[in-house]
Amino acid sequence: MNTFGYNFRVTTFGESHGPAVGCVIDGCPARLALCAADIQPLLDRRRPGASPLTSARDEADTVEILSGVFRGQTTGTPIALLVRNRDVHSADYEAIKEKFRPGHADFTYQAKYGIRDYRGGGRSSGRETVGRVAAGAVAMKYLAEKGIAVSGRIVAVHGKTTPEEIENEILAAKAAGDSVGGIAEITATGCPAGLGDPVFGKLDSCLAGAMMGIGAVKGVEIGDGFAVVGRFGSENNDGMTATGFASNHAGGILGGISSGQDIVVRIAVKPTPSIAQPQQTRDIHGNATEISVGGRHDPCIVSRILPVAEAMLALVLVDAMLGQEKY
Amino acid sequence: MNTFGYNFRVTTFGESHGPAVGCVIDGCPARLALCAADIQPLLDRRRPGASPLTSARDEADTVEILSGVFRGQTTGTPIALLVRNRDVHSADYEAIKEKFRPGHADFTYQAKYGIRDYRGGGRSSGRETVGRVAAGAVAMKYLAEKGIAVSGRIVAVHGKTTPEEIENEILAAKAAGDSVGGIAEITATGCPAGLGDPVFGKLDSCLAGAMMGIGAVKGVEIGDGFAVVGRFGSENNDGMTATGFASNHAGGILGGISSGQDIVVRIAVKPTPSIAQPQQTRDIHGNATEISVGGRHDPCIVSRILPVAEAMLALVLVDAMLGQEKY
Amino acid sequence: MNTFGYNFRVTTFGESHGPAVGCVIDGCPARLALCAADIQPLLDRRRPGASPLTSARDEADTVEILSGVFRGQTTGTPIALLVRNRDVHSADYEAIKEKFRPGHADFTYQAKYGIRDYRGGGRSSGRETVGRVAAGAVAMKYLAEKGIAVSGRIVAVHGKTTPEEIENEILAAKAAGDSVGGIAEITATGCPAGLGDPVFGKLDSCLAGAMMGIGAVKGVEIGDGFAVVGRFGSENNDGMTATGFASNHAGGILGGISSGQDIVVRIAVKPTPSIAQPQQTRDIHGNATEISVGGRHDPCIVSRILPVAEAMLALVLVDAMLGQEKY
Amino acid sequence: MNTFGYNFRVTTFGESHGPAVGCVIDGCPARLALCAADIQPLLDRRRPGASPLTSARDEADTVEILSGVFRGQTTGTPIALLVRNRDVHSADYEAIKEKFRPGHADFTYQAKYGIRDYRGGGRSSGRETVGRVAAGAVAMKYLAEKGIAVSGRIVAVHGKTTPEEIENEILAAKAAGDSVGGIAEITATGCPAGLGDPVFGKLDSCLAGAMMGIGAVKGVEIGDGFAVVGRFGSENNDGMTATGFASNHAGGILGGISSGQDIVVRIAVKPTPSIAQPQQTRDIHGNATEISVGGRHDPCIVSRILPVAEAMLALVLVDAMLGQEKY
Repeated sequence: MNTFGYNFRVTTFGESHGPAVGCVIDGCPARLALCAADIQPLLDRRRPGASPLTSARDEADTVEILSGVFRGQTTGTPIALLVRNRDVHSADYEAIKEKFRPGHADFTYQAKYGIRDYRGGGRSSGRETVGRVAAGAVAMKYLAEKGIAVSGRIVAVHGKTTPEEIENEILAAKAAGDSVGGIAEITATGCPAGLGDPVFGKLDSCLAGAMMGIGAVKGVEIGDGFAVVGRFGSENNDGMTATGFASNHAGGILGGISSGQDIVVRIAVKPTPSIAQPQQTRDIHGNATEISVGGRHDPCIVSRILPVAEAMLALVLVDAMLGQEKY
Repeated sequence: MNTFGYNFRVTTFGESHGPAVGCVIDGCPARLALCAADIQPLLDRRRPGASPLTSARDEADTVEILSGVFRGQTTGTPIALLVRNRDVHSADYEAIKEKFRPGHADFTYQAKYGIRDYRGGGRSSGRETVGRVAAGAVAMKYLAEKGIAVSGRIVAVHGKTTPEEIENEILAAKAAGDSVGGIAEITATGCPAGLGDPVFGKLDSCLAGAMMGIGAVKGVEIGDGFAVVGRFGSENNDGMTATGFASNHAGGILGGISSGQDIVVRIAVKPTPSIAQPQQTRDIHGNATEISVGGRHDPCIVSRILPVAEAMLALVLVDAMLGQEKY
Repeated sequence: MNTFGYNFRVTTFGESHGPAVGCVIDGCPARLALCAADIQPLLDRRRPGASPLTSARDEADTVEILSGVFRGQTTGTPIALLVRNRDVHSADYEAIKEKFRPGHADFTYQAKYGIRDYRGGGRSSGRETVGRVAAGAVAMKYLAEKGIAVSGRIVAVHGKTTPEEIENEILAAKAAGDSVGGIAEITATGCPAGLGDPVFGKLDSCLAGAMMGIGAVKGVEIGDGFAVVGRFGSENNDGMTATGFASNHAGGILGGISSGQDIVVRIAVKPTPSIAQPQQTRDIHGNATEISVGGRHDPCIVSRILPVAEAMLALVLVDAMLGQEKY
Repeated sequence: MNTFGYNFRVTTFGESHGPAVGCVIDGCPARLALCAADIQPLLDRRRPGASPLTSARDEADTVEILSGVFRGQTTGTPIALLVRNRDVHSADYEAIKEKFRPGHADFTYQAKYGIRDYRGGGRSSGRETVGRVAAGAVAMKYLAEKGIAVSGRIVAVHGKTTPEEIENEILAAKAAGDSVGGIAEITATGCPAGLGDPVFGKLDSCLAGAMMGIGAVKGVEIGDGFAVVGRFGSENNDGMTATGFASNHAGGILGGISSGQDIVVRIAVKPTPSIAQPQQTRDIHGNATEISVGGRHDPCIVSRILPVAEAMLALVLVDAMLGQEKY
């Protein structure tokens, strides 16, 4: 269950403090021009260490292509992408290794597997998304050749909407040993009509699953999302014209199939659960205790989730594109 | 892509005005007591014709078990469930067969397949959910043996929250040749900790995909959903006690794995797109035109989606339960 | 695990003495002309009751298309095919319901599921192949449009190779309360080069799995098969010419991908395990006992396996054809 | 399609002359003791350079565990295994890069993908099996804990059956610039009854697909295989006793489900297609030409296929074991 997609399949691997993270892409069409320089910029966007607003962990996140590319072109065989972990401070986690961090997956991984790599969250760390973003970059390269572009923006952070307000809100939360969440919106333009596979591979279903599968995401909307519940059908339907649509409340998807309009998805990102403030919790022996989460954490994860969400949208689209070929 | 699930796989088939709808369940454990009477009540809850608030289409929706059950017990082989379509008024659709109904899948099915069964929406009709609900009833039978119960409730319809207000709101919309949407909440109690498969088979990811794949759903929230974006991490984290959790903002899922708390999902349901009011649209020849959708339609689909959403939650849970056995 | 294929997915259901057998096909391209008359002839070829060489069970095996076809064309939605069981003599099995028939799946189904439908072998009956053959007929319709034809022939039965010798051999075995097996060969002509997905979806791998998954098959060969072990590489390699190949020892597949030559598969079919002669066995209580299998059985199953093997080859090819579209 | 298995999923990657080969294992149960030393011995058995009977390519094939193991135990997360390619002589292939080697996948890869990494066969090289063998070693570790052991033996090479005859036969072929094939047999002992998923995930179907998917394999037999076609049913059925079976003609599988007896598979391995003798072929421009394949090749591949076939049997069994948990 570490594989995403059906036609363009991405398997990610790796833990936060293990030797490496990465992915294997299976099903990428042959003869796509591809080199590391196509992948690195998206990895650079998600990497930590770049600003006081994000974690201080300093990772170069240099990607190596291990297979599937021959003289600058994909060959149709699996593309393995590798990123070594370098700046690992595992000692930060020794003090809390027996305590479950609230809002994290510590308790549930322990419940599921009976074992967990507690260093930096192990597999449940955001560091796992390196593999997703690397794969997403390959997907975007393919989509770009088809005229499809994916982009994302921050809608709001803790109620603030301008960059300056948002920055202040995050720094204030950080100073208080706390964290904040927000809303991001991801859009794809240039998508043809006809993508998506009813009834259980609907494009919106795939998108919702892809987005909700990003750590910290607690809500997903397609098009106008929850706002539709306050409307009449006569307001919410997108009328058609001779050449297109009169509006796009639907977010580019009807009956689970793309309509040719822009595809619009919004996600709710919770406040980072790692906070310095003391919290009530339990240890692995069943005793009530307190925890204050040290280490290097993002006081707000929204901006770093953006490239991940864009990557996931790209992966959903490339998968649907390739699945559509047979019709 | 008409199959849902990995360990408990449900394949649905059938069109609104074809001979039958139904499903095949593959992977149901053997020796589960099962008969048609276990399935019929849930089908009865979703069937039309029961109230002035719903479509006047009158279907008995009697289910027949074609395979997989021997002397009242499942055998581990595929369970095929069949429901014949009876009350089919295909003539209702002849007049609009060349027009794309706004808010429906008419245009996108045509774009994808180059052909569509326009009678009652064909495969994109809500009638397809008969198969889901039948399968969900089998899933619930299994879950009940494990102490897990699934239930749903209407949170609001077009801003109204009491049954009387909701009924009036729906009847008013119907009288105006219009429709309204709303919010429903589905809950599972009794779920053990440990369900869900990181990183791409997370329980919340599966739930979001399952819910967004129901026709008319435009938004999905787990736990507190979009409300989390207004909180600090210190407010949103669910502290742990020696025996459980101090709150359930997370909706019973952490890191994509169930925590043992109640699982809570909310969905935004759009106003039914079929409305009597005239709407601007296009025909299959590319001409702008008007349409007024006759036929027998629900002025509000929220109540009929409830059993479908419950079924989908049950399917996600049984799939995760069976997938968890190996750990 | 009752689903075959990846792009053209066939899920079969049904037991020998249950209400019905059939299948659901998911992923069939839209706009393929299809009606029951396309499917019935292949079903007629596999049905029992037609000759003294086969079982006396008399089934019309009339197929009903339940979904996925609109006005004579497929719509891209699931095609459900149903065949009712009619001539069921379940009483034949009451006498032996507690005994495991040697060479049959009685013991292993009991071991796996803790329950089994003992009437006519239940799910392990050859009757399950009705669904496969029906689906194979749809696959063949598609392949025919691409210029691909599938055919099969009996190579030998119990060492005999002419129809007259074979008939005598079978009747002699029947008279002795015994049974015989044989070898069949299935060929596809007109196949383009490029089908098959290395490294785990190789065309020969899929074919071998498909053929060995037919009941009673114990061996599979591609091309010259086991004969290659007596050759030098210089004898076995198929040299190439400017326009094709000088020979076809490989059976049309190189490196798991079709070469454009005829695809040739041979299968070893064991003697029918149901024989009237008394055999040593065990009952479900663990007691040693004897069994003589009555009921209506084929003294040789090779001829009835032919349409099944052809269907499986067709299913493998259509699946590979659709999977190839994206490259 | 570079993923094998359903519950214990192995994705291999890598080309013969690329930077690395390896695999990602997804679905391995947690808390299995595992370190590189568990994997290395099986890799050493398949590695080249060890004898005059095999290729002179000298690869240490040292495996690195990149993820999924924490302090000597698996964690339930993906296990990525990496082996760097070291002794790469790509120049050997420049001279023949435009010629299709008979008996190889050169032509078919070109036909399928429109591009191929011609260095050492690229992805179609036997070097890809490094990933399979590494994964197989993990599977064997798991199986050993359940009391299941997998082993293989050479039955014959070019008609010879003793090691001394076989060695002479191979050296003679090598001296003649030619090659020979043979038969290998793989056996699993200690397998419980009940493994395998009818009707399309039968254990023998999975085994046949797994074995035929190994390069150079042209035939697969389960149990007595093709020999059954010369027998009467009364000879071929394995009678049962109070505690077991009187014989094992079936090779441990009945109705696609393991019976608890030894599982026995035999494979026909073709003579290595790379031979020094000149052969008739075609180049990528469509001209008839001759080729003599230099480089470092095995004159007989049977012995090196043995650990691969054992690995594949182990992968099939562990997959079936994990799939069986739910019943």
